[in-house]
Amino acid sequence: MSIPDVTELTLEEKASLTSGASFWYTKPVERVGVPAIMVTDGPHGLRKQREGGDHLGIGDSVPATCFPPAVGLGSSWDVDLIHRVGEALGTETSIENVGVLLGPGINIKRSPLCGRNFEYFSEDPIVSGVLGAAIVKGIQSKGVGTSLKHFAANNQENDRMRASSDVDPRPLREIYLRGFQRVVEDAQPWTVMCSYNRINGVYASEDPWLLTHVLRDEWGYEGLVVSDWGAVNERVPGLAAGMDLEMPSSGGVTDAQIVAAVKDGTLDESVVDVAAGRVLDLVRKTTEGAGSVAGPLDVDAHHALAREAAGRSIVLLKNEGGVLPLARDARVAVIGEFAASPRYQGAGSSMINPTRLDNALDEIRALATGDVSYAQGFSNVLSVSDDDAEGLRAEAVVAAEAAEVVVLFLGLPARLESEGYDREDIDLPAAQLELLDAVLAANPNTVVVLSNGGVVALPFAGRVPAILEGWLLGQAGGGATADVLFGEVNPSAKLTETIPVRLEDTPAYLDFPGEFSHVRYGEGLFVGYRWYDARRMDVAFPFGHGLSYTSFEYGDAAASVSASGDVEVTVAVTNTGDRAGREVVQVYTGLASSQVQRAPRELKAFASIALEPGETQAVTLTVRRQDLAYWDIRADRWVVEGGSYTVSVGASSRDLRTSVDVAVEGDAFTLPLTRSSSMGEVLRHPVAGPIVQSMIAQAMGGMADSAASIMPEGVDMSKMMDSFPIGRIGMMASLAGDGAGASPEMIDGLISMANAGGVPAQA
Amino acid sequence: MSIPDVTELTLEEKASLTSGASFWYTKPVERVGVPAIMVTDGPHGLRKQREGGDHLGIGDSVPATCFPPAVGLGSSWDVDLIHRVGEALGTETSIENVGVLLGPGINIKRSPLCGRNFEYFSEDPIVSGVLGAAIVKGIQSKGVGTSLKHFAANNQENDRMRASSDVDPRPLREIYLRGFQRVVEDAQPWTVMCSYNRINGVYASEDPWLLTHVLRDEWGYEGLVVSDWGAVNERVPGLAAGMDLEMPSSGGVTDAQIVAAVKDGTLDESVVDVAAGRVLDLVRKTTEGAGSVAGPLDVDAHHALAREAAGRSIVLLKNEGGVLPLARDARVAVIGEFAASPRYQGAGSSMINPTRLDNALDEIRALATGDVSYAQGFSNVLSVSDDDAEGLRAEAVVAAEAAEVVVLFLGLPARLESEGYDREDIDLPAAQLELLDAVLAANPNTVVVLSNGGVVALPFAGRVPAILEGWLLGQAGGGATADVLFGEVNPSAKLTETIPVRLEDTPAYLDFPGEFSHVRYGEGLFVGYRWYDARRMDVAFPFGHGLSYTSFEYGDAAASVSASGDVEVTVAVTNTGDRAGREVVQVYTGLASSQVQRAPRELKAFASIALEPGETQAVTLTVRRQDLAYWDIRADRWVVEGGSYTVSVGASSRDLRTSVDVAVEGDAFTLPLTRSSSMGEVLRHPVAGPIVQSMIAQAMGGMADSAASIMPEGVDMSKMMDSFPIGRIGMMASLAGDGAGASPEMIDGLISMANAGGVPAQA
Repeated sequence: MSIPDVTELTLEEKASLTSGASFWYTKPVERVGVPAIMVTDGPHGLRKQREGGDHLGIGDSVPATCFPPAVGLGSSWDVDLIHRVGEALGTETSIENVGVLLGPGINIKRSPLCGRNFEYFSEDPIVSGVLGAAIVKGIQSKGVGTSLKHFAANNQENDRMRASSDVDPRPLREIYLRGFQRVVEDAQPWTVMCSYNRINGVYASEDPWLLTHVLRDEWGYEGLVVSDWGAVNERVPGLAAGMDLEMPSSGGVTDAQIVAAVKDGTLDESVVDVAAGRVLDLVRKTTEGAGSVAGPLDVDAHHALAREAAGRSIVLLKNEGGVLPLARDARVAVIGEFAASPRYQGAGSSMINPTRLDNALDEIRALATGDVSYAQGFSNVLSVSDDDAEGLRAEAVVAAEAAEVVVLFLGLPARLESEGYDREDIDLPAAQLELLDAVLAANPNTVVVLSNGGVVALPFAGRVPAILEGWLLGQAGGGATADVLFGEVNPSAKLTETIPVRLEDTPAYLDFPGEFSHVRYGEGLFVGYRWYDARRMDVAFPFGHGLSYTSFEYGDAAASVSASGDVEVTVAVTNTGDRAGREVVQVYTGLASSQVQRAPRELKAFASIALEPGETQAVTLTVRRQDLAYWDIRADRWVVEGGSYTVSVGASSRDLRTSVDVAVEGDAFTLPLTRSSSMGEVLRHPVAGPIVQSMIAQAMGGMADSAASIMPEGVDMSKMMDSFPIGRIGMMASLAGDGAGASPEMIDGLISMANAGGVPAQA
Repeated sequence: MSIPDVTELTLEEKASLTSGASFWYTKPVERVGVPAIMVTDGPHGLRKQREGGDHLGIGDSVPATCFPPAVGLGSSWDVDLIHRVGEALGTETSIENVGVLLGPGINIKRSPLCGRNFEYFSEDPIVSGVLGAAIVKGIQSKGVGTSLKHFAANNQENDRMRASSDVDPRPLREIYLRGFQRVVEDAQPWTVMCSYNRINGVYASEDPWLLTHVLRDEWGYEGLVVSDWGAVNERVPGLAAGMDLEMPSSGGVTDAQIVAAVKDGTLDESVVDVAAGRVLDLVRKTTEGAGSVAGPLDVDAHHALAREAAGRSIVLLKNEGGVLPLARDARVAVIGEFAASPRYQGAGSSMINPTRLDNALDEIRALATGDVSYAQGFSNVLSVSDDDAEGLRAEAVVAAEAAEVVVLFLGLPARLESEGYDREDIDLPAAQLELLDAVLAANPNTVVVLSNGGVVALPFAGRVPAILEGWLLGQAGGGATADVLFGEVNPSAKLTETIPVRLEDTPAYLDFPGEFSHVRYGEGLFVGYRWYDARRMDVAFPFGHGLSYTSFEYGDAAASVSASGDVEVTVAVTNTGDRAGREVVQVYTGLASSQVQRAPRELKAFASIALEPGETQAVTLTVRRQDLAYWDIRADRWVVEGGSYTVSVGASSRDLRTSVDVAVEGDAFTLPLTRSSSMGEVLRHPVAGPIVQSMIAQAMGGMADSAASIMPEGVDMSKMMDSFPIGRIGMMASLAGDGAGASPEMIDGLISMANAGGVPAQA
C-alpha cells in the first residue's frame, strides 16, 4: 500500500488528517487510500483498549506484559537492558497492529509529590535523556513508533491542563529541555507529544517557540507532534505553531476551523500541508513497519524479561551486618499486604492489563527451603477500624517473634499516587509506620521492602538493618524481589532521584504546585541533587546511591579532550568481593571557576558494567562537549565555558572515588558592546578596554581623595564602578568638569569601533 | 517669597526644573523667582558636602550628629524613639538650610549579603513600613523633606545599575512594596527616590506602572519622584512614566531632549507641566519650612539622643549564668580593636562626619570602678603578618587570663560592607575567630560584643555565655555599649532580621546576586523568617529575638474585629523581674485554612512598652485589615481571605506566648467564569454549579465502570477532573457519544448566564 503525497489531497482532506477519528485512531482518507492508524497508551506495556469498549479511552485493555514502570527500569541505569525492554515493547505493539506506543515519558521529577513520577526516569536530564533514547530506539527497532512525552516542563498533575510552568531560560534549557533534546537528537522518536500545561504563559500545544523553533529548527526534529489527549486550546494557532495532530477526535469541529481559517486567509494553506504531510509520513512509516513482527506473543519469554528487568530495578539502600542476602533455609516471616497483593504499576493512562502477575510471597516460598510464615500486617483498604488494625499488627508481631528474619513489605497504597493528581506528603501511611515499630521491637532483624512510585520519607532508616527500594516493578516484580532477597540476583540498581530527609527539604517545597494556574520554578537550576549539594544539606539517600552484595574499587580516573571536543574519561573498576555483580559508574563534572551559577557537580555520563569476582575492567565514559554547555541568556545560545573542569567518578553523587581536572577550551563568541555594557565589561574588552582605561584615569584624577570621606580604607572604588553602564559615564565625567568628559557621541563612537574590530572574547 | 505656578514658566524653564543644576542642587528659575534648593545624603545624619568641595558628591561634609544607622535604630522597634531621632535629623537639616534629607531607605533585607543592609530596617515589610513612616514624620515635622528610597525591589548592590529584579506579583506586592505603601499612605514623604535597578526588565526610573499606577493611582502619593543619582536611563520615557526630577545634573542634555520631544510631538507638554509643577511644589514646601528651626545645633543634646538611641539598638542575643550586666567593680579585660576604634556606620553615600565620637573602651573605663585592661586582639588593617596576629592574640590571652570577665569586641572591618558592592560570605574574619578560641580557652567568662552592618554567622554562639549584637551604633555607640554592659541601660532591642546558622540556609542563597543582570527572586514570598518557618529550619537566632535583664510574662491574648474591620489584639504584659525594662510585644497572624501560599505566621503589629518591676500593662495592638490581605493575581487586587486567623503574641517569632483565633470576614469579589475556568471552579459557582452537575451526571453515566480499569480502588475521578477546563469539556462529552454532549455554544451560554447572575463569591 502506497501512501499518497499531500498534494493529492483536498484542503478538507488535509485538515481532516490533523485530528483523530476517535480516541485511538487517526482519520483515514479512503478516496486516496490513506488508512487510519492506531496509537495506544503505554509505555511500560501496551494498553490497547479492547474492541467494543467505551469511547473515552479508559476501558479494559488486552493483556500485555507489564514491565517495570520508568521509576523502576530507570534505576538500572542500563541502556542495553532498557533497549531490550524497548524491543519487547515494540514486538507487542507490532503484534497488536498498533502504530505508535505513547511513550516514553521523560519529564524531570521536580518534586517527589508529582503524581506521575512513577512514569518518569529521573530528577536529572542526562539520565532521563540517555535512558529515554534507549527505550525509543528499542521500540522503534520493531517498526513501530513512540511518542516522547510530555513536551515540556510538565512536572505536576495539579491543574495540569492550565498551569503555567514559569521557568527561567537556563533551567528550562539545562534541566527541563535537555533530556528531550537528547532523545530527539539521538533517537528521532516518530512522534513527540506536547503537554497540557503552559510554559511561561503559553500553552505547549500552541507555542511556536517550543514546537518549531526549539524542536525543529534547533534540534532537527523530523517527526510529528501530537497533542496530549485534550491538550488543544485553540486549534488554528496551534497548527501554525507546529502542533500537527490533535488527539483525540474533536468531532470535526477543529478541522472545520482550519478549513475556514485557510479560506478567510488567516491561515496559510502551506501550514496545513506541512502538518498533514507529517501525518502521512507517520502513516507511511507505520504501514511499512506493520507485520514486521509475527505473533503470537511469547508470553513466557517476555515475563522472564520483565523479571530480569525488575531484578535490575530494585535498589539496595542499606544492608548492615550482612542481613542480606537471606539464607535459603532461614526461618522467614513475610509481613505486609504488598507481599501477597503487589503494588506493581501506577494508575492512569499507563495502567496495563498484565499477562500474568507474580507476588513476592509465593516467589519467596518457591525459593526458600526454610519455613516462611506470612502476616498481612496492615490493610490497604480505605477504612480499617482501629481494632482491625491492631489485630493485624498483633498477628504480625507473633510472626516476627517466631522468625529468624522478617521481610517487611511497606509501601504506598495505589490510591495515593496516580496520573491526574499529586501527593500532599511523602509519608508512608501511619498504620504501616506503627506496624514497623511493633515488628522491630519483636525482631530487630528486619528487612524493609518498599513498593512506591514516588519517593517516600524513611524516618526509620537508621533503625532497620536493611532496606530494598522496590519502586513499582511490573508483573514479575514478586519473583525479582525473591531473587534479590536470596541473592539469586545481586542488586545493582541506583537511585535516579534523591531520597530527602523531609519533604520540607525538597527544592520545590514552597512553590509546588503553585496557585491560580501559575507555578514558579523558583529553585531554578537547582533541582534534585543539585539543590542538596549546593546548599550542603543532608539527605536520606543521595542521587546515584545503591549497594551491592559485592564491593567495587575504583582506580584513578584519567580524562582527556578528544578531537571532537568531548571529554573521554577512563577508570578501572574492580570487583573486590566474592560474588559477580554490576556497578553503575557515574561521572560528574564541576567548574569551580565558573562565571555562571552552577551546581557543585552535575552528572554527565554513566555506565553499567558487569564484573566477575576479582575482575577489573577499564571503563571509558564520554562526556559530550555539549553537555558541558550552559545556556547563555545574553547570547540566547549554548556556551561552553573554558576552564579547568573537575571530573569526579564514583558510585553515587556523594560517594565519589576519584577525580581529575581537565582543561576545556571555551567557545569563542562575541558579545557586542552597548551603552548598557558595564565598565567592567568594557574594561575587559580587548579593543575598548585600554582606551577607556586612559579616559577614566583622566576624568577621575581628583576623585580618589574625595572618595576617602565616604569609603573606608581598603575599598577599591573600581569594585563599585565595575557594573556602571558605560552609557551613563558621561554624567560623572561632565560633573568632574575638567573637559575630559565623555560625551554620548564619544561613547557611541567607542562602542562601534570596538564592535567593528571585535576580537572574539573567550567565554 | 512666593513660588510661581507652572503656567508662568516657558517650556524650556519647565524642562530645566526636571533635572538638577549640580550634584546637590535643583535649578533656579531666576526670571520668576524660583530658587534652587539643596538636598543632601543621609539619612542617619546629614551628609552636607562642604562648599568648594568636589563636584562628584563624595567630598568631605560638614559635621553632623551620626545617629545609629537603620540596622541599629530599627532594632528598637520603637516608633516614638525613631520619631524623636527623626525630629533631631530634621532639626539639623533645617539648621543647615537643606531642603530634603535623602532617606530613609526601607528596602527589604532579602539576603544578608547585600552590602547596603545596614541602611535598611528589616527583612519584614511591616517593620520597615512602620519604622520608615515614623522617621519620615519626625524629619518632616521640622519643615524639611525626606526621600523614601530606593523605590523599589533594590535588594543588592551587585550590578545595581542594570540588574533586573525578576519578582512575581505576590512577593513584589506583599513583601517588597508593602513597606513603601505603608510609608506613603501614613507619612507622605515629600519625595520618593526611584532606584537604579530594573523590575521585571523595566528600569524603575522609567516604569509607569511603578511610578504612576501603583505609587500615585493606587497609593495616592502626592509628592515628587526623584531619581537615584545616575538612575536615569532614557529621560523622555522616564518623565512620561512619572520620574519627575533627574539628579544629579545632566549638563542640560536631558532638558534639551524633553524640549525637543514636546516640539516634535512625541511628548505631551502636560507631562512636563506635571513634573515641573511637582518640583515647584517641593520648592514651595521647602521654602515655607526654611528657618523654622533656629541654630546653632545643640551638639550635646543630640549626642545624648544618639547615645539613648544606640542603647536601644543593642540586641542581647544570649546571656547565660547572669554574666551580664557586669559588676561595676569587676576586673574586666576589654579585647578587640573595635573597642578603641569603633565601627559605627557604613560606607557610601550615608557616611556622616560626626560631631563627636565615643569609643567603648573609654566609656567602659568611665563607668567601671574596677581594673579595665585592654588588648587590641587583632588588626583591621588589610595585611597583618602571621607573626603580628599571633603577637596580638598572645597579648589578648594574657589580658583574658588576668580578668574576671572578658568583653571581646568582634565585627566586620569597614571594607567588607559598603554601598556599591555586596559581601560574598557572612563570616567574621578568621583571625577574629581564632582570637575568640584563644580567649575562651583562657577565660570562658567572655562576653562577645559585635559590630557589623550585615548579619554574621555565629558558629561560637553555643560556646560563649553572652553575646551583644551591637550592629552599627553611630557616634555615641561606645557609651551606649558601656551602658548596656553595666546595666545602666537594660537592653530591649530585638532582631529585625533572622540570624541564620549558615549562609547556605538563607532563602536567596542560590540566586543572589543573579547573573547577566537578572536576579530571580526564586524564594517568592518566603523571605527571612517566613522561609525558615515554612521549611521548619533551625536558625541561630530568630526574627524578633532579643533578651532583657528582666523577664516578662504574657497573659492570654484577646482579639476582636473592630467596626473598621481591623483586628484589635489585647494582651497583658508583666515585668516579673526586679529591674525596669522594655519589651517589644509582637503580633503574628496565620491562616491555616488559606487557599493561597502563606508563611506559617507573619508579623502584623508590634509595640515597645516600658515596665517597672512588677508592673503589668494591658497592651492593645492593631492589625490593619489591609495587612491581612494577599495580592490576588487573578483579580489584580488585594483580597482579604475569610476564615479563622490565628493571632499569636509573643517575645519573638519563635517565642510565642499566647494565641487566639479570630474570625475575619473575607472580601466579596466576583471572578467571571471563562472557558478556562476549571470544572472545580464551575461546580463551586452558585449559578453554574448545579447545572453542570446534572450535565456531567448525564454525560458520564457509563464512565465509572470503565475507569476501574485504569484507576485503583478508592480514587475519586472527580479529583482528576477538578482542574479540567470547562471549555474543553465538549470533547469528552461528544466522545461519550450519547448526544448529551456540551457544544461550545452551550458552554458559552452557560458562562454568560452565570456571569450575568454572578453572585459574589467569597474569597
